[in-house]
Amino acid sequence: MDIGSTLDKVRAQKPLVHHITNWVTIADCAQIVKAFGGSPVMAHAINEASAMTAIAGALVLNIGTLTDDLVAAMLAAGAAANHRKIPVVFDVCGAGATRYRDEVCVKLIENLGIAIIKGNGSEIMRVAGQDVATRGVDSSIGEDQTGGLMLAAEALARKTGAVVVVTGKTDIVVGGEKSYLVENGAAIMGNLVGTGCMAASVIGAFAAVEQDYALAAAGALCCYGIAGELAAARAKGPAHFKMELHDAAYLLTREEVTARRRIR
Amino acid sequence: MDIGSTLDKVRAQKPLVHHITNWVTIADCAQIVKAFGGSPVMAHAINEASAMTAIAGALVLNIGTLTDDLVAAMLAAGAAANHRKIPVVFDVCGAGATRYRDEVCVKLIENLGIAIIKGNGSEIMRVAGQDVATRGVDSSIGEDQTGGLMLAAEALARKTGAVVVVTGKTDIVVGGEKSYLVENGAAIMGNLVGTGCMAASVIGAFAAVEQDYALAAAGALCCYGIAGELAAARAKGPAHFKMELHDAAYLLTREEVTARRRIR
Amino acid sequence: MDIGSTLDKVRAQKPLVHHITNWVTIADCAQIVKAFGGSPVMAHAINEASAMTAIAGALVLNIGTLTDDLVAAMLAAGAAANHRKIPVVFDVCGAGATRYRDEVCVKLIENLGIAIIKGNGSEIMRVAGQDVATRGVDSSIGEDQTGGLMLAAEALARKTGAVVVVTGKTDIVVGGEKSYLVENGAAIMGNLVGTGCMAASVIGAFAAVEQDYALAAAGALCCYGIAGELAAARAKGPAHFKMELHDAAYLLTREEVTARRRIR
Repeated sequence: MDIGSTLDKVRAQKPLVHHITNWVTIADCAQIVKAFGGSPVMAHAINEASAMTAIAGALVLNIGTLTDDLVAAMLAAGAAANHRKIPVVFDVCGAGATRYRDEVCVKLIENLGIAIIKGNGSEIMRVAGQDVATRGVDSSIGEDQTGGLMLAAEALARKTGAVVVVTGKTDIVVGGEKSYLVENGAAIMGNLVGTGCMAASVIGAFAAVEQDYALAAAGALCCYGIAGELAAARAKGPAHFKMELHDAAYLLTREEVTARRRIR
Repeated sequence: MDIGSTLDKVRAQKPLVHHITNWVTIADCAQIVKAFGGSPVMAHAINEASAMTAIAGALVLNIGTLTDDLVAAMLAAGAAANHRKIPVVFDVCGAGATRYRDEVCVKLIENLGIAIIKGNGSEIMRVAGQDVATRGVDSSIGEDQTGGLMLAAEALARKTGAVVVVTGKTDIVVGGEKSYLVENGAAIMGNLVGTGCMAASVIGAFAAVEQDYALAAAGALCCYGIAGELAAARAKGPAHFKMELHDAAYLLTREEVTARRRIR
Repeated sequence: MDIGSTLDKVRAQKPLVHHITNWVTIADCAQIVKAFGGSPVMAHAINEASAMTAIAGALVLNIGTLTDDLVAAMLAAGAAANHRKIPVVFDVCGAGATRYRDEVCVKLIENLGIAIIKGNGSEIMRVAGQDVATRGVDSSIGEDQTGGLMLAAEALARKTGAVVVVTGKTDIVVGGEKSYLVENGAAIMGNLVGTGCMAASVIGAFAAVEQDYALAAAGALCCYGIAGELAAARAKGPAHFKMELHDAAYLLTREEVTARRRIR
């Protein structure tokens, strides 16, 4: 497993990563993809969603500020992605906060072939069918529950055929040929809005160039987490951290990845 | 009046602050709430607006880029907030710029129980019924008209039963048990897009933990203004200032609040 | 041609620049206009789009995340701008990526009097009728093709009567009384999401105060590019660069413009 070479592939191929996403973190998602070397594009009109996916290398869906028209565009774009066999990354942002989000999660998972489902602890537990509530978009599950989260993620992976990613202090990646635990990252990420959304976007960029989607997700989370560690060392608060995170992603070297990776 | 203890309550309770807001400053509003210790969530679909309010501690409505579907969601979420007796903060962003904004202000104020109405000088004058125009989202009222603004704010407070906040060089809070003038803040805030929107979001976080809404609003403006002062001392322009403002909010201590508060 | 005096006019007149734009870069577009001294306002509801244009000094249209409702608002606002004879700046963001974008470009150009059409290389070639594809929102045309781009831009200018701007390493401005090549700027701008959108917004602010639209566009690109050069010298990556760019715009002096302008 050579994560540095996947990063190099992103930079060499500059994959177009089509997002249908939320209005809060849309700029940060675009910039983190650009920083890692990809080419982000956001297009949510039903008139062009599938046409944009048709020229992309991956599709990232995020329900952070979903409405019915976005869901329709997601279904159209997702069908185009499935037809072209490019990966669909689905960030189940806010699952477990309202019934509408839960219903949309079910609809998208039932109607599309999803390559990678990503969420925080309570989001994944809810999508896996457990009676758990999410506090808006913040997880209600403690950092120490890796065991229970892994079981829920594995059940969801079996049920859907997708690789399932649970982000947290330790990121969990299950459902592929191998499972991974990624321990890179920094505590301050929990104080910045959008770290979860950006993680999904980075996963999209990596999955566009690496067909082993579990490896792609683990590699993306490892690189993103390392950029976070480098940024945290230079930041006094979350806003400085965000700027440093984006630039650390831009400047990240293969050597830093090899030296700092904490992935099992 | 112990503003530091209200700040501590925000950090301890981490209130969920539901926003239905504009697309320009949505990310900044989310991050400033997070920086002060709250948990922001943005959800504007009619399908889930009232359900999201049902798990929140406060609701912030901002008409900066309003459309009819957002207004419908605001009415639904506002009704849910009224039913649960959690505070509704209404930022009358751009009132006095177009007839549509004025009509929506009237509709929301007539149909909802608003805890706190917030605007800049010309916005509040217009909502108070005066023949004043707003220049887009920038006030057309001079900084020296505190007296006239206070009268207009008091009239609006009497008419609506809400606490009324006028932001400016001196922030005015009227309509509660006590009135307040807050003089914390920094001149550079006028050169940054979104300072008014962020103020309303911080007020939402404070009102979620302090039932004296005038005190909550004054405390929020005081803490936000002090963070602005600390940030301005470190910033050469508005973009540096924004980053410093967010991190000053994150790092703000009770001691700094006590030492720097300028509130009457 | 005194670009510094146009910059001074923006700061003195603080023109209201009405945008109907995309959700990715909307905050950056607002802040760059504010930094240069203008007053940005974003309003896309069909209920108020033309009313907001009626109090503005320029209208900026950007189809980065277009939907049918935005297109309807653009047509209404554009008609109001034409009626009042204020300039319409049209950023053909993503033209050549999907058929929908191409069709909307044709519709807006046919139905409105556009003062300035702005795009990157492949966007302008596509709008000029060539069989060129755009990679999402990134140009597919090499930096060395200034000659071919100039011909395409001139053809588009003749056909539409608009000033046509092609951004790139060398910015091209044709279709006015004089043509201009602007060589200010920094390579790192290509690694930041939104540099093209912000350029169009700055052009809008300058065109609001300078009726020679080719001169306004060239002056805007020159000032924006100089701010970029000053920022690049202080930035290690694109996120630092963005902050420095906004503040360099805010702090830019007439003397710096005179000393650094590279415009032919």
